[in-house]
Amino acid sequence: MPVLVETIAEFKTGKPFQGMTVGFRLHLEPKTAVLIEALLAGGAEVIAMGNEGTTQFGTAEVLASQGCEVLDRPGQGPEATAVHLSRIAATGPDLVLDNGAELIGACLDNANPPLGATEETTSGAFRLREDLAGRVGFPVIVINDSPLKSIVENKHGVGESVVDTIVRVTNMSFHKKRVVVYGYGWCGRGIALYAQRRGADITVVEIDPIKALEAAMDGFDVAEPSVASTTAQVVITATGRPGVVDYPAIEQMPDGVLLANAGYLDTEIDIRQLEQQAPGAELSPSLKRHDLSNGKSVFSIAEGRIVNLAAFGGIGNPIEAMDLGLTLQARSLAVLVDPDYDLSPGPQPVPDTVNARVATAMLYSMGQLG
Amino acid sequence: MPVLVETIAEFKTGKPFQGMTVGFRLHLEPKTAVLIEALLAGGAEVIAMGNEGTTQFGTAEVLASQGCEVLDRPGQGPEATAVHLSRIAATGPDLVLDNGAELIGACLDNANPPLGATEETTSGAFRLREDLAGRVGFPVIVINDSPLKSIVENKHGVGESVVDTIVRVTNMSFHKKRVVVYGYGWCGRGIALYAQRRGADITVVEIDPIKALEAAMDGFDVAEPSVASTTAQVVITATGRPGVVDYPAIEQMPDGVLLANAGYLDTEIDIRQLEQQAPGAELSPSLKRHDLSNGKSVFSIAEGRIVNLAAFGGIGNPIEAMDLGLTLQARSLAVLVDPDYDLSPGPQPVPDTVNARVATAMLYSMGQLG
Amino acid sequence: MPVLVETIAEFKTGKPFQGMTVGFRLHLEPKTAVLIEALLAGGAEVIAMGNEGTTQFGTAEVLASQGCEVLDRPGQGPEATAVHLSRIAATGPDLVLDNGAELIGACLDNANPPLGATEETTSGAFRLREDLAGRVGFPVIVINDSPLKSIVENKHGVGESVVDTIVRVTNMSFHKKRVVVYGYGWCGRGIALYAQRRGADITVVEIDPIKALEAAMDGFDVAEPSVASTTAQVVITATGRPGVVDYPAIEQMPDGVLLANAGYLDTEIDIRQLEQQAPGAELSPSLKRHDLSNGKSVFSIAEGRIVNLAAFGGIGNPIEAMDLGLTLQARSLAVLVDPDYDLSPGPQPVPDTVNARVATAMLYSMGQLG
Amino acid sequence: MPVLVETIAEFKTGKPFQGMTVGFRLHLEPKTAVLIEALLAGGAEVIAMGNEGTTQFGTAEVLASQGCEVLDRPGQGPEATAVHLSRIAATGPDLVLDNGAELIGACLDNANPPLGATEETTSGAFRLREDLAGRVGFPVIVINDSPLKSIVENKHGVGESVVDTIVRVTNMSFHKKRVVVYGYGWCGRGIALYAQRRGADITVVEIDPIKALEAAMDGFDVAEPSVASTTAQVVITATGRPGVVDYPAIEQMPDGVLLANAGYLDTEIDIRQLEQQAPGAELSPSLKRHDLSNGKSVFSIAEGRIVNLAAFGGIGNPIEAMDLGLTLQARSLAVLVDPDYDLSPGPQPVPDTVNARVATAMLYSMGQLG
Repeated sequence: MPVLVETIAEFKTGKPFQGMTVGFRLHLEPKTAVLIEALLAGGAEVIAMGNEGTTQFGTAEVLASQGCEVLDRPGQGPEATAVHLSRIAATGPDLVLDNGAELIGACLDNANPPLGATEETTSGAFRLREDLAGRVGFPVIVINDSPLKSIVENKHGVGESVVDTIVRVTNMSFHKKRVVVYGYGWCGRGIALYAQRRGADITVVEIDPIKALEAAMDGFDVAEPSVASTTAQVVITATGRPGVVDYPAIEQMPDGVLLANAGYLDTEIDIRQLEQQAPGAELSPSLKRHDLSNGKSVFSIAEGRIVNLAAFGGIGNPIEAMDLGLTLQARSLAVLVDPDYDLSPGPQPVPDTVNARVATAMLYSMGQLG
Repeated sequence: MPVLVETIAEFKTGKPFQGMTVGFRLHLEPKTAVLIEALLAGGAEVIAMGNEGTTQFGTAEVLASQGCEVLDRPGQGPEATAVHLSRIAATGPDLVLDNGAELIGACLDNANPPLGATEETTSGAFRLREDLAGRVGFPVIVINDSPLKSIVENKHGVGESVVDTIVRVTNMSFHKKRVVVYGYGWCGRGIALYAQRRGADITVVEIDPIKALEAAMDGFDVAEPSVASTTAQVVITATGRPGVVDYPAIEQMPDGVLLANAGYLDTEIDIRQLEQQAPGAELSPSLKRHDLSNGKSVFSIAEGRIVNLAAFGGIGNPIEAMDLGLTLQARSLAVLVDPDYDLSPGPQPVPDTVNARVATAMLYSMGQLG
Repeated sequence: MPVLVETIAEFKTGKPFQGMTVGFRLHLEPKTAVLIEALLAGGAEVIAMGNEGTTQFGTAEVLASQGCEVLDRPGQGPEATAVHLSRIAATGPDLVLDNGAELIGACLDNANPPLGATEETTSGAFRLREDLAGRVGFPVIVINDSPLKSIVENKHGVGESVVDTIVRVTNMSFHKKRVVVYGYGWCGRGIALYAQRRGADITVVEIDPIKALEAAMDGFDVAEPSVASTTAQVVITATGRPGVVDYPAIEQMPDGVLLANAGYLDTEIDIRQLEQQAPGAELSPSLKRHDLSNGKSVFSIAEGRIVNLAAFGGIGNPIEAMDLGLTLQARSLAVLVDPDYDLSPGPQPVPDTVNARVATAMLYSMGQLG
Repeated sequence: MPVLVETIAEFKTGKPFQGMTVGFRLHLEPKTAVLIEALLAGGAEVIAMGNEGTTQFGTAEVLASQGCEVLDRPGQGPEATAVHLSRIAATGPDLVLDNGAELIGACLDNANPPLGATEETTSGAFRLREDLAGRVGFPVIVINDSPLKSIVENKHGVGESVVDTIVRVTNMSFHKKRVVVYGYGWCGRGIALYAQRRGADITVVEIDPIKALEAAMDGFDVAEPSVASTTAQVVITATGRPGVVDYPAIEQMPDGVLLANAGYLDTEIDIRQLEQQAPGAELSPSLKRHDLSNGKSVFSIAEGRIVNLAAFGGIGNPIEAMDLGLTLQARSLAVLVDPDYDLSPGPQPVPDTVNARVATAMLYSMGQLG
């Protein structure tokens, strides 16, 4: 992770967090540990908790040896989450790095509320804007909305890894297969691109005609869902909306069609209804065959959960995308305590200067700008 | 122009402009004549003038025979412009279709100002927002800012025709040539794409690091201008800003480099300075060779003016892009008199519904959505 | 033409043709003049004639001033050809550079037949193998069969220029147009590739199933002619065989289809029959519209002659392809008098060593191998 | 395997092998079992052995239940091979299906030698042409030399799976990585293509200048090995020759370079010398890091063995390539007993008619020719 490593070097000199405490809540594993290392290098004291049941304790031990207080313990149950949230909030952290907005929520009524926070997810940002609206008196930088993530992670990272995962799970060739991609947002256009590069013919289904026109100009076929369904050999959803492919649509599809979802929700394809009507027989890990009453067979991957993360052997996001996201976190935290910035309270995008700084560093790490 | 033709059919039935007059100012030639035909079909009376010295009088005659009043006359001088603007304004048009905001300006103080107007250009919109700020009491829809134009016209239309024109003027092969593209906006990314598709190796120069990162993820090299200059065999500017390539930069470029500009301004490359230092010898129409004092030769196309329009044999925009732009005009005018819309005064983008409607029609014309 | 220029430099030193005469018959224009310059630099005396009616006399004058004897005179009629052939043969040339095998034929019965010859065309080679079989007692190197020509000229040169020429003549956009390419030889695969790069959807029609499979693996659709015809918006033939698209097939095509031929013969598409059934109205130079009795219209380019050469504004082959072909000529002639080579009599391919030498030089000229 | 399944249907009716015995020697697993099924369907009696130690006994049982005699037994040692070869030869098979030419060799001195044979591998064909030259009195069709295999298996199958395997083993992104591909044969061009489609910049190293020129025209950089080495971030060899990348070359490569081999031999990259100089530390299955004495680190995959087959999680060839190869086997055997064919003795390529027949079937299975 060269971009984050470069940030560590800078923090070691500049000590942006000297004398401050950071409440940290994010999946604890070797890569996020490098983010904590960056905060420690910048002079922070860090008190950390992971997401329930996912903490890697080898990593936690290393972090502890570096002076980071890690609350998670092996064998702890779900009730530990609330305890840890309260305990971190009780320390009155100067900064909060959060994932889901629960830790931010826990700190809202502190006597000395944080100077600022970062929130990793769009759904956390949504919670801040809805449930906690008007209660957040300090700036919260929402990492996931950065345009850098759209480009590097959503289009290229997700696009490539979704296609790779489907190929890996099914061992199928995409050559001259008709792949129907639902949604032509950042993820959808990456999926369409990388499926095409494996020799597939692509049909894009997209309700926004402007994006649909862009798909056509990018060289893809564009069709109404009812037409697209009847030609699909592979269906991949990436719309972010539930119920995009319902059971009647599945019945219309050709015999042998493969169904995969690349969106966050596991309800884009109605696998629940499919399972009820035609329970899946497991062919291999993450791959099921469903024999419909109309005589056709349908294949589903990972029960319709986000395929590149949920499928057995799923590829996840590339290390480069992690490097980018964690550096956005580190530098956004630094901005929150930088007197040159005067941020307004509440959820807000990553400042342009941070995006620009991280994009430049990433370009250098790719051997560009030389 | 199937999309505009479909609009004519609709206007013939719906008569959206029944009983209204439209003041029209746009280049008068066969394609824009179809736009006037659409207005007439919609029930409008049209009084029209072209841009100075560009009116095609054969077209004007046909329009006159269809009942459109055309003010331009063969042999008229530049002083006719002001006369015609005043004359149209004096008729108190219900709607104005403008190009440069001069006709809109002339109508501002009418007793009965127009119900609304469309403005073709971004520079006209700029004038409305600056010089005429606060004086425009009716909605003005700015056509050029439509995202449809960015996609269809700027990226694919301009991108493809710029590369085609350079190949045509020079008869050179792009295979393994190093082409440096300045600017990674819509035009720049189209130019980079189509130059690559002819076998060139592309370097993108872009000051916005986020766009630069996108260029790198799209597979192009990205470099600082000082580095890019020293490797360029072809330079194409598409930044929209003056002075991007100055004379000292040209001196640093390799012997034999070709300079072309794809931006609106003819000052992106400092051809004026180049001409002073090393006057160009014309090799063929629109192609000059400049022998620099440092012993290198440099080639320039069309004196640095926008290459796909200004070069001899330049290809201009494809008919499909014209079809799109003129339909946006026709449907935006219809929206201005549609009671379902309640538009605020002043310059504003094309309404989403119009963009969506035109995008859908264009998709059908491309054989999609079937 | 950097590759040929490099050869000239080498010949100036090595003088491979010292004391020899070369009978030269090839289109005489500025580029082929550089080939003659190479022979002169190598020490040859050259006596030259062009193809009937195509000689550029400005070029001829320059050649004469360099010591080359040029037989063609302005205003000469077709009867001059036989006279010039005889006259060159009568000089008893040591080497012959021919185009159509007529000059070779004229020298067969010389008391001192040539040491060797080169023949530019495949049809000339055919004549040598059929009509003159057994009579050619010296080696004749056939230039056009070199694999270098297949790659550089046929695939990329012809492929790109055919598509460019069609776009130029029609001013049409290829985006999402269905282009049917007949023949998946070197030219056909170039045409399919460059049409796809302009956004077209490609169907390949190819009678050899192995090539057809290659087309499918390359990402193109493959169809029987009867099916392909009914979907085509653009038809391009590149099979080298007559009667590929006959009139009944044209009648089955969609309204508005455009017909173009990229093969050597003007009979691949049966334009003669089309003209008889539905005489074409000229829309612009090289573009005709034919109104069929079944109510459809069909467009034809350049009367079905080879489109990139015959159409008005046709692009021809790029200079790089000429550079390659002429260098193959020059170096093949040198091999014929090189004692290290012991070539058998009769028509034969360009020796591997020559192909390798020219390919390497061309790579350097493209900035490769550095 | 739709193409082979279609062949089975045809054999069931035509019974080409009625009353004949086939001696079968090929890896015995579920896919090759379908080939045996085809022979049984065609009326053959089959006596089969696998390659040493690779037989899947579940498959063997199924085959036995269908009437095929399988010689392999669980737990048998290497000495079984010779026994089984003799035993099959002793039955005097009418046809032989071989892999390595050992079974063919065993049958040469039979009183009634086979009517014909097929040989899967190029190395088996080599053995027939060298060691057994002049002794083979019946036709032997060599499957691996079919142009269909070059296209489907070598270019697209191997190309795609080599790149996929490297990505899977290393979890690296190829975006803007400099990948150096040694060899531009069928495999090399597939590797270059699929690496480029993942965003890599490609340099091709190729000693044949004609292929090198083709690589350049295909858009890749071409360099001498000494230059290419110094820029490589990933090296992939696919030349079929030993010692292509030796230890001194490895020392010149940039720090962090990754070495992978896609050729049949494990000696294209001199991993043996690398291991001696800098023993590899295993980072993950199939991935090692070597710390050189010059301070650089080098990574190697699968000890330099053929990466898509040997690496942990290697992807192997796609099922479509297997389908193709096994159908070529089945139909070539049928040709050997078809009176319409009069094949000469000795090793020879797959007949054109068989290639054409299988290519056509494969096109149909890809949804083409419709």
